[in-house]
Amino acid sequence: MESLLEKINSPEELKRLTEKELPCLCEELRGKIIDECAEHPGHFGAALGVVELTVALHYVFDTPRDNLVWDVGHQAYAHKILTGRRDVFHTNRQYKGISGFPRRDESEYDSFGTGHSSTSISAALGMAVAAKMNSEEERLSVAVIGDGAMTGGLAFEGLNNAGINNANLLVILNDNNMAIDPNVGGMNEYLLDIATSKTYNKIKEDVWHLLGKFNRISPGTRNFIQKIDNSIKSLVMKQGNLFEAFGLRYFGPVDGHDVIHLVKVLRDLKAIKGPKLLHCLTVKGRGFKQAEIEQTVWHAPGKFNKDTGEIIKEPLSNSPPLYQEVFGYTLLDLARANPRIVGITPAMPTGCSLNIMMRELPDRCFDVGIAEQHAVTFSAGLAASGLIPFCNIYSSFMQRAYDQVIHDVALQRLPVVLCLDRGGLVGADGATHHGVFDLSFLRGVPNMTVAAPLDESELRNMMYTAQLPGKGPFSIRYPRGNGTTAEWETPYVALEVGKGRCLVEGDRIAIVSIGTIGNEAMKAVRQCPPGSVALYDMRFLKPLDEELLHDLLSRFRFVVTIEEGTLVGGLGSAVAEFAIDHDCPARIVRLGIPDRFVEHGTHEQLLRECGLDAESIYLRLRELLSVSTL
Amino acid sequence: MESLLEKINSPEELKRLTEKELPCLCEELRGKIIDECAEHPGHFGAALGVVELTVALHYVFDTPRDNLVWDVGHQAYAHKILTGRRDVFHTNRQYKGISGFPRRDESEYDSFGTGHSSTSISAALGMAVAAKMNSEEERLSVAVIGDGAMTGGLAFEGLNNAGINNANLLVILNDNNMAIDPNVGGMNEYLLDIATSKTYNKIKEDVWHLLGKFNRISPGTRNFIQKIDNSIKSLVMKQGNLFEAFGLRYFGPVDGHDVIHLVKVLRDLKAIKGPKLLHCLTVKGRGFKQAEIEQTVWHAPGKFNKDTGEIIKEPLSNSPPLYQEVFGYTLLDLARANPRIVGITPAMPTGCSLNIMMRELPDRCFDVGIAEQHAVTFSAGLAASGLIPFCNIYSSFMQRAYDQVIHDVALQRLPVVLCLDRGGLVGADGATHHGVFDLSFLRGVPNMTVAAPLDESELRNMMYTAQLPGKGPFSIRYPRGNGTTAEWETPYVALEVGKGRCLVEGDRIAIVSIGTIGNEAMKAVRQCPPGSVALYDMRFLKPLDEELLHDLLSRFRFVVTIEEGTLVGGLGSAVAEFAIDHDCPARIVRLGIPDRFVEHGTHEQLLRECGLDAESIYLRLRELLSVSTL
Repeated sequence: MESLLEKINSPEELKRLTEKELPCLCEELRGKIIDECAEHPGHFGAALGVVELTVALHYVFDTPRDNLVWDVGHQAYAHKILTGRRDVFHTNRQYKGISGFPRRDESEYDSFGTGHSSTSISAALGMAVAAKMNSEEERLSVAVIGDGAMTGGLAFEGLNNAGINNANLLVILNDNNMAIDPNVGGMNEYLLDIATSKTYNKIKEDVWHLLGKFNRISPGTRNFIQKIDNSIKSLVMKQGNLFEAFGLRYFGPVDGHDVIHLVKVLRDLKAIKGPKLLHCLTVKGRGFKQAEIEQTVWHAPGKFNKDTGEIIKEPLSNSPPLYQEVFGYTLLDLARANPRIVGITPAMPTGCSLNIMMRELPDRCFDVGIAEQHAVTFSAGLAASGLIPFCNIYSSFMQRAYDQVIHDVALQRLPVVLCLDRGGLVGADGATHHGVFDLSFLRGVPNMTVAAPLDESELRNMMYTAQLPGKGPFSIRYPRGNGTTAEWETPYVALEVGKGRCLVEGDRIAIVSIGTIGNEAMKAVRQCPPGSVALYDMRFLKPLDEELLHDLLSRFRFVVTIEEGTLVGGLGSAVAEFAIDHDCPARIVRLGIPDRFVEHGTHEQLLRECGLDAESIYLRLRELLSVSTL
Repeated sequence: MESLLEKINSPEELKRLTEKELPCLCEELRGKIIDECAEHPGHFGAALGVVELTVALHYVFDTPRDNLVWDVGHQAYAHKILTGRRDVFHTNRQYKGISGFPRRDESEYDSFGTGHSSTSISAALGMAVAAKMNSEEERLSVAVIGDGAMTGGLAFEGLNNAGINNANLLVILNDNNMAIDPNVGGMNEYLLDIATSKTYNKIKEDVWHLLGKFNRISPGTRNFIQKIDNSIKSLVMKQGNLFEAFGLRYFGPVDGHDVIHLVKVLRDLKAIKGPKLLHCLTVKGRGFKQAEIEQTVWHAPGKFNKDTGEIIKEPLSNSPPLYQEVFGYTLLDLARANPRIVGITPAMPTGCSLNIMMRELPDRCFDVGIAEQHAVTFSAGLAASGLIPFCNIYSSFMQRAYDQVIHDVALQRLPVVLCLDRGGLVGADGATHHGVFDLSFLRGVPNMTVAAPLDESELRNMMYTAQLPGKGPFSIRYPRGNGTTAEWETPYVALEVGKGRCLVEGDRIAIVSIGTIGNEAMKAVRQCPPGSVALYDMRFLKPLDEELLHDLLSRFRFVVTIEEGTLVGGLGSAVAEFAIDHDCPARIVRLGIPDRFVEHGTHEQLLRECGLDAESIYLRLRELLSVSTL
């Protein structure tokens, strides 16, 4: 059978298909996504869920003239394949390959770059308003947003503003009742309620019966009854509907996997100007049985066997654990001993491993949904009442809670322990997800302790230390992925806050590092002549170990700072400030992430690009050693 | 007549009054607030609006055991007066006096410090959940939040999470249809709709008529009709109500100025456990005629004559304009010439003077409500469609949009002009409102231009430069208050981005400053021996003028950096990084805001405290001059 998909290099060509051919195209697209993701790991479940929707959108609307904004963006695989990237799709999320998210610089069909959640309504509204100002009101701007992303405050702010700007905006609510983990919150229950439509259907039915019964009554009476019926309709559809309350016309719910019907509905909506919302029900992982059943596991499963549905795991014999597991088991362990400890996550219980504590102590764990701001202020409220919240937020998402960290936690010196997972370069997710600004933006916050462990054992000790009395606002930043030792369950040691430690003695160059990048430094040091390069693990970026720095800056001709974070304002900057303020003589060399956005690739590839892998560090050290001999 | 208020030093004593005495107490409280605010400027309108609510809350609930969180907090004057701070209230917002906002370190009755908007639901929910965990479920946590603050995404996130945590939370929606300026957005129209209850009342009426008419009909039929009535009620009160949709029980609307009724309602609510919301209608400025009429003017009117209602203005003969006015008139002027320019503000059209452009070009200005995140991402959407948005957000509120600045603007290199009003120390509003972190957190953002003008004319030139083609993400930071010259309407000059300028030549010390603090530096330089101290205005913190720094660091033995921003990561830090990276010999002295939260006071008092007033700078220069002679 001839492939439909192979003929399609742009939405132009898609439009040449007949409606009847669309289901077949959808199956081909789905097959292509399964084939590609089995080999090249990606966001699988979400991508499968929107195949029909994607086809219908490009079939009906005039993209790229009509703007299409994919919220979060990890579901845009079908979109990429249909818009000229079919033949490069195998490079998805790979170094120098295409991005796993929409990117304006990758295609004109990617109207707006995404990655973080809940931005699409605001961005699409901006485009719709711009079209209106340019008297191009027929240009439609579409935001496709999941019900998970809908719980983010930004989405609400966009919705609230959309209703009063009479712009040509279509919000498509992709309701699959999941983010990565199942969704939580009032909004989610509300959506379920609409989708099942119990109340509305029941009322309609009642009125229907009533009308039937009273057919024999006088016209005046019938009038009254019809008035009620209309009132009910307007109530359910207007004030009664959350979205209509915000001034958007609500349509749906519709079956998001019936492509023919979707095409019809979207055509109808095309004729309706102004802000409107289509509630679309989809199934995450649709068309791949295992993915439909275990949606969290198949969110981003890694490589798998597409025939058996078996996920291919790397052999794990005695390999070091994930930092996430160390976090999860340690928190549970600490919480067993300290009843004041509670755990908070904004929609990442599996990703950050809070689910480990959830299983045993469910009443002391809170998944607040995609809502980083709330996660932090809610934690501050818990702390104000005497609890010790461990609030785990991915580093790049903590950018969303910066004001809450300053205003609600630090200013009030509340003992909230901010755990920044995915610190440093995250790999395949790329520019939007690298956690490279955290050390810099947290260092500027008064009263905040900023810590980053070298390894699993130090992560445990930092977590242990953070929950001791009187510690105040405390942040711990660690990377995604595996640690360095299988023997991680070491006894707890209370660390002295603001004190670093010596890992390797040496007399010509001193390295000061923070966090796990110290392990790369260690490899580099081992390549240098023994005794030549000393390695210090700062442990704390703030407060800074001034005593140690005084010593190092006076003893060594060269001090090298190493951090897996931006060079602007981080550890190197702190050491530079210190050296300048104390007029220290040493030459300081600062290694870190350069002041630009780093793209996607493996962690190793990106470290090398930034000159932070062991080999690059070694070359710098060798260079400095040759100078320091002179 | 004996004063009731004078007998009250705590809510304990308030509770000894009879209910009948409460209206009288409210009038005394109102009089006290009017007396104090007439002399000592403060947030007047909001404070008057919640007098009855405050009395009723402390009368009915067991504060401080029951937690009371005032959203934003500028309306908590009656609360402060009733909770032991009556006799120090005249020090409100003054240096070393009490804060204009609730502060945990000021009183045990201030359960949670506020200042920024929309935090109260999350914080109170945290407290309610903590109470539940401690088996103290009778302890109530109350969030009092205005309808303006309700549009902030954080409030929505809190609401969404409140419904699923069955904690003893009471949200009081203080609905006065105003923030500082009138509110905008779907939520606001929705509230108005509930408050006037057209739909609900109309349906109730229709059903009533119907029931009356059919009294003669068979019981079975009546049954049907009652079923419909119940369905309608449940629909309006449950699914039909936005808050009930989120899982909170909704009560109201009630008259927020009927203290006796409020006491009754709050007593009733006390008996109802779980999350609930009371919709309370109030009038901003209630009880002071002018303030009720001109609510924006009387939000924080400054000193006034309490008898005539006349606001006392400082004589203004030919004094320099406010930076806000310069922004407003310049933006209008630029927008007249460049049709791509649009203006965006999150609820501050009067405060930032976007209202000047709004009057002439209303279709090109957008007040998006209290929604900083949306303001930035919406601007990014506008920019993605070819417009040049000037998005004006107070510096300390920009902390809320940090992720949007990074993820939606900078990463995509979109030409959004971020105008950070209220940069630096803001004076009486204190720690929550100082704009002292902006230079530091914006410097860490790749692709971002970070500019700060020395004076009005430079603000104009920076705004002019920012809208020229190809400039990309651009931030301009300037202070609140008056500029330095009455002759500010200078012709536009395109500035070279990343280039500083020499203001005063000198040969022994070089000062490099950024922003308006350069004017203090100028005064200090003028006190020094002529020709001894050079003064350079960097204009741009990013990109840094490396050529200038090379020159200064090689020519001068001392380089002094001055900024009205945190010493952690700002200009001084940038110069330190540069000097370290280029191994420059000069001694660098860094002046700026120390790494702690600065409290409230006049701008002059706070500058002095931070060593940034002209006199303090002069003393440092004199000290350095004496060393540099050696």
